[in-house]
Amino acid sequence: MKLRELGEFAFLEELRDRIPQNPRVLLGLGDDCALLAPSGKVLATTDSLVEGVHFLREWTSLESLGRKAFAVNASDIAAMGGEPTFALLSLGLPPDTSVEELHGFFQAFVAEASRYQAVLVGGNLSASPCLSITVTLLGRAPYGILTRRGMRAGEDLYVTGTLGDAALGLRLLREGKGHHPIVQRFLEPLARVRTGQLLAQRRLATAMIDISDGLLQDLGHLCAESRVGAVIEGSWLPLSSEYKELLGSGNWELALTGGEDYELLFSAPPGQERMLKRVGEKSGCPITRIGRVVEGARSIEVRDQAGLCYRVQRKGHDHFLS
Amino acid sequence: MKLRELGEFAFLEELRDRIPQNPRVLLGLGDDCALLAPSGKVLATTDSLVEGVHFLREWTSLESLGRKAFAVNASDIAAMGGEPTFALLSLGLPPDTSVEELHGFFQAFVAEASRYQAVLVGGNLSASPCLSITVTLLGRAPYGILTRRGMRAGEDLYVTGTLGDAALGLRLLREGKGHHPIVQRFLEPLARVRTGQLLAQRRLATAMIDISDGLLQDLGHLCAESRVGAVIEGSWLPLSSEYKELLGSGNWELALTGGEDYELLFSAPPGQERMLKRVGEKSGCPITRIGRVVEGARSIEVRDQAGLCYRVQRKGHDHFLS
Repeated sequence: MKLRELGEFAFLEELRDRIPQNPRVLLGLGDDCALLAPSGKVLATTDSLVEGVHFLREWTSLESLGRKAFAVNASDIAAMGGEPTFALLSLGLPPDTSVEELHGFFQAFVAEASRYQAVLVGGNLSASPCLSITVTLLGRAPYGILTRRGMRAGEDLYVTGTLGDAALGLRLLREGKGHHPIVQRFLEPLARVRTGQLLAQRRLATAMIDISDGLLQDLGHLCAESRVGAVIEGSWLPLSSEYKELLGSGNWELALTGGEDYELLFSAPPGQERMLKRVGEKSGCPITRIGRVVEGARSIEVRDQAGLCYRVQRKGHDHFLS
Repeated sequence: MKLRELGEFAFLEELRDRIPQNPRVLLGLGDDCALLAPSGKVLATTDSLVEGVHFLREWTSLESLGRKAFAVNASDIAAMGGEPTFALLSLGLPPDTSVEELHGFFQAFVAEASRYQAVLVGGNLSASPCLSITVTLLGRAPYGILTRRGMRAGEDLYVTGTLGDAALGLRLLREGKGHHPIVQRFLEPLARVRTGQLLAQRRLATAMIDISDGLLQDLGHLCAESRVGAVIEGSWLPLSSEYKELLGSGNWELALTGGEDYELLFSAPPGQERMLKRVGEKSGCPITRIGRVVEGARSIEVRDQAGLCYRVQRKGHDHFLS
């Protein structure tokens, strides 16, 4: 069935019954606003996925998009050391969108939210020439927050997981090789919520960001906000076996500039590597030291094993710079 | 200058300096999330404006769209008897969007927010084939909330302002008559925040909704949620002088079914008309009795002066029903 046959209101009424109850949601879907009872300070972020810009319909199911739409927002909450609580979802939908696929989207989105006891509390469906998904996610930060400021010269730089896999997956999709398993890293990234929370709780990190626009670009934001520079050791960059197999372990380009990994990048005082390894083990996500913080606002250098260094020129992805 | 020449980050950096400070915003634009300190329970709503669906670029400036994008969300907050506090804004932008026009959009949006001491705390810019604006608005409800439930048979029905003007304005725009003043009702609707608050504060209304999809459609939601029916007196419908001049005072179609007026529709116990008139005067927005609540779930009738009545068939606007 197409959405234009069922209609917006019938669809929303069906959806309402599928949302789990939560004592902090005093009024959920179905009125002009939701009414929420947050437990303290509130984190808030918003992010979009737009057809033709962030994805093509032939690459991905609406179910995968539901998971990704939640994850990219949860990643922003993770980057503050928080956890998601309430979600609002605004969808721009071509009228020939299938109701079954749309149910798949909501089911996946709501299931992702439920992993954190987060609830879908508001929504809006609108006709649109292209499929467009905007999520606003609220969160809580019981252990305080980690911002982009606070990084100091002499500290070490760390990342979670492996880098460049999402960009590699996207490249394979564009080349028609969508069957390769690394493509999942692009289609269904994971938000590092648990790791971010442990870092906040144990006060191990001094500044943090999630890598959505590429390591160098997002490191640039950290450096700019903290007014320091950074040196990255290229050979320390954590690369997946698929990355090394397809690109070679000496090819760091995608690991440095590829977007959408949604790994966490953070700074920590020197000598914390063993403690951080344990946080990685506890949260099921390896943590790797990749360089250090230096004096000199916004200067970022990448070194290779020969000690040769080059200064960063192109920093990553800007949606609008041509 | 086009956005693709300036770039997203440079634009956002410029924007950041223009947002007024607010003690409840512990961390505003410029990090992965905002950190907010709401004063109590939190209202939350989201709504979108999509080019080609809700507006055409040749009809309207980005400045007008900034005001409208805020107002349509503030109207949902008004419909609960609340007031806006924090806004998040997600824009899908064609890369040839002019930076100057975009500044006009933000300036207008931020100015509208400031009328309520509300603050823009989060944003996201994405490339998009069409201009698409999604706002999430949070609010507070110091006097408690008014929901869609609670309407009882025997009560009276009221609306603020005049009805059908936005739909009439849209019709004129489509006919190429964009110079007519009534067109402003469509391009820059007003949210009835002050009126909604007074109704909540004085406990005069029993259920409330804002009219975004047409009087009958939104009355249908009130009736469905409250499990009652309604009788509308057609000749009581408040019509603007422009409406009467262009369509005649006996033509109620647009007043009954036209969308986007963003007036408030609410029920109140009998005998409150004088008190409500005073609320209207105090908030600068006339309040008119238009009918009454009756037994019988979801049955809505419209009567004319001859006493003749007809039952509502088509209820208004659904984005997806063809």
